[in-house]
Amino acid sequence: MNDRPLVRDAAGNDGFDGVAEAIEIRIAHLPAGHVRGSDFQQVAARLADPGPTEVLVRNEWMSLDPYMRLGLTGQDGYVSPLQPGDILGGPAIGLIEASSDAGYPIGTRVLNQLGWRSRFVATPAEAGLVRIDDEDVPLEWHLGLLGLTGVTAWIGIERVVQPAAGETIFISGAAGAVGSLACQLAKLRGARVLGSAGTAEKMTWLLEEIGVDAAFNHREGGLETFLDEHAPAGVDCYFDNVGGPMLETFLGRTRRGGRIGLCGAMSQYEGSDYRVGPANFFAVIEKELKLEGFNAFLLTGEEWASAQASLKRLAQAGDIRPCHAVVGGIEKVPEAFAQLFESGHRGKLIVQI
Amino acid sequence: MNDRPLVRDAAGNDGFDGVAEAIEIRIAHLPAGHVRGSDFQQVAARLADPGPTEVLVRNEWMSLDPYMRLGLTGQDGYVSPLQPGDILGGPAIGLIEASSDAGYPIGTRVLNQLGWRSRFVATPAEAGLVRIDDEDVPLEWHLGLLGLTGVTAWIGIERVVQPAAGETIFISGAAGAVGSLACQLAKLRGARVLGSAGTAEKMTWLLEEIGVDAAFNHREGGLETFLDEHAPAGVDCYFDNVGGPMLETFLGRTRRGGRIGLCGAMSQYEGSDYRVGPANFFAVIEKELKLEGFNAFLLTGEEWASAQASLKRLAQAGDIRPCHAVVGGIEKVPEAFAQLFESGHRGKLIVQI
Repeated sequence: MNDRPLVRDAAGNDGFDGVAEAIEIRIAHLPAGHVRGSDFQQVAARLADPGPTEVLVRNEWMSLDPYMRLGLTGQDGYVSPLQPGDILGGPAIGLIEASSDAGYPIGTRVLNQLGWRSRFVATPAEAGLVRIDDEDVPLEWHLGLLGLTGVTAWIGIERVVQPAAGETIFISGAAGAVGSLACQLAKLRGARVLGSAGTAEKMTWLLEEIGVDAAFNHREGGLETFLDEHAPAGVDCYFDNVGGPMLETFLGRTRRGGRIGLCGAMSQYEGSDYRVGPANFFAVIEKELKLEGFNAFLLTGEEWASAQASLKRLAQAGDIRPCHAVVGGIEKVPEAFAQLFESGHRGKLIVQI
Repeated sequence: MNDRPLVRDAAGNDGFDGVAEAIEIRIAHLPAGHVRGSDFQQVAARLADPGPTEVLVRNEWMSLDPYMRLGLTGQDGYVSPLQPGDILGGPAIGLIEASSDAGYPIGTRVLNQLGWRSRFVATPAEAGLVRIDDEDVPLEWHLGLLGLTGVTAWIGIERVVQPAAGETIFISGAAGAVGSLACQLAKLRGARVLGSAGTAEKMTWLLEEIGVDAAFNHREGGLETFLDEHAPAGVDCYFDNVGGPMLETFLGRTRRGGRIGLCGAMSQYEGSDYRVGPANFFAVIEKELKLEGFNAFLLTGEEWASAQASLKRLAQAGDIRPCHAVVGGIEKVPEAFAQLFESGHRGKLIVQI
């Protein structure tokens, strides 16, 4: 079918004998508002044989994260603007099925940044390959607890907001991948933790399983009343996953000199301009607030390793519980992604391909 | 003229023999855009004799500051919304002319918060009286170098932004009361200082007298080109006195992890909504920026004293130069205040009444 030599593993064995099939989830339309499953289409692709510097990877698990929505907004930033026909991509775990790179022999398990497809051929650099050596944790932890969202929660609580014992922290998106860990880390520090989510079932889960002190259902409204009851003197810290009106409320409700950790602005990702700031920004000056953004994409390898080591230790000791919501089958990816923005899942959303 | 007894000083001497005249600058209209001198009117008032807990103060100096504009916006915040007929007020220095309070005998020099009028009768608490004991500095320093704007500059540089030797900091409103001190304090720390102002004469002054490394005239435009030349790798710190488009530019031009000190948003004070945040706020997350507001109104007496002691020491040693622009006569107040927003003065604007 083509004239290139068969690829070989590090030992020189042929590991692959021809052309591979891949299922790819491609963008069908750029959504105007709420993303829907129908904004994507499933495409069967034939992959060319890997070239002399490439590997063939079969993805087994992939991550679905709110930030991916930014690739569909047409605005530059975190994620470069994408077009219909493009693949969103993002963190995945796969197995090397064929390789010309001695550093990644056949059978090696790797993290990569080419999710939203069942197989791909790429150079290790193009794919952002990182070998997974850590065999004593469930594989999906590498996408959740020890992945982007776990490290983000850890950095946000332990390096940025640092809630102290006795302080009150409010965490929005508390039942999400980042929020559910942030709540637990803040509790371990002795803080009083208030959290918000979007379903009654998540409220119960936050109170009974995650251990927050009070939970607020943002779909029911009444945040000011909730805060009058649970934080009448204001909050010391606010961990922001959602932006929008909730950030504005907490610019008002955070005490003088308080800390606001800016993790994401999920409520703005489906709006007309996710980059825009809060309407009452001047409160930052009036109340001497400290706002700090954090972005695990920018951390050094050392910072990642340090965060991962702490998270692993805490989880293995039973001090925090990793929360992974696993969906089965790559064909479920579009709907599962759409539900991320509809309060659909608890904890970290992962697809087993 | 009335039946109340004459007021007496601490020694029981009559210090005042009747009704005093005051000149007050009152709001005539709330300005829609640019404030103009004609938005105020000068009113002659007869003051009632001070009651048993009151003092009569004759103001000698008063401060004009951009934040005062916020009282004219109809929005609540720093300054409560004012109406036509009200007096803006703010820091002033005066002499006790009559007193029923033994703590403030006749002849005592006092800071007070009832500027924009030549005399007033009030209780010490209503007037925010603070005795001026420090006789070894020029009186106007208490409104400038050692007043709200000096302390603000000191807090912003020494406690918030803390530019390090070799770092590049951009300071907007660099020729203003806060900016001209902030530039000098940043230079003393060994930082490379870039500053902006609005006239060619201020550019020269910043370069030759204040010692900035490069100056940008914001009325001429071309900030991106200026930064391409003077900070091609971005700035480490931005000290924001103006808000608006300049803050947006520096959300783009501040390096990853950089610090932005939020002091004021003068360019927004005459707009439709001074509280609104920057359009590209999401850069805070993308680049892990640290934003911190500061507000000398909120400092403790101890914090004030510590800042003042440092500023006085530096000025008396000749390491910084206090910059006071003195205007003579209370009748000049309306026009001088309007010119604050037209790049009219260098350094701290003070009126000698």
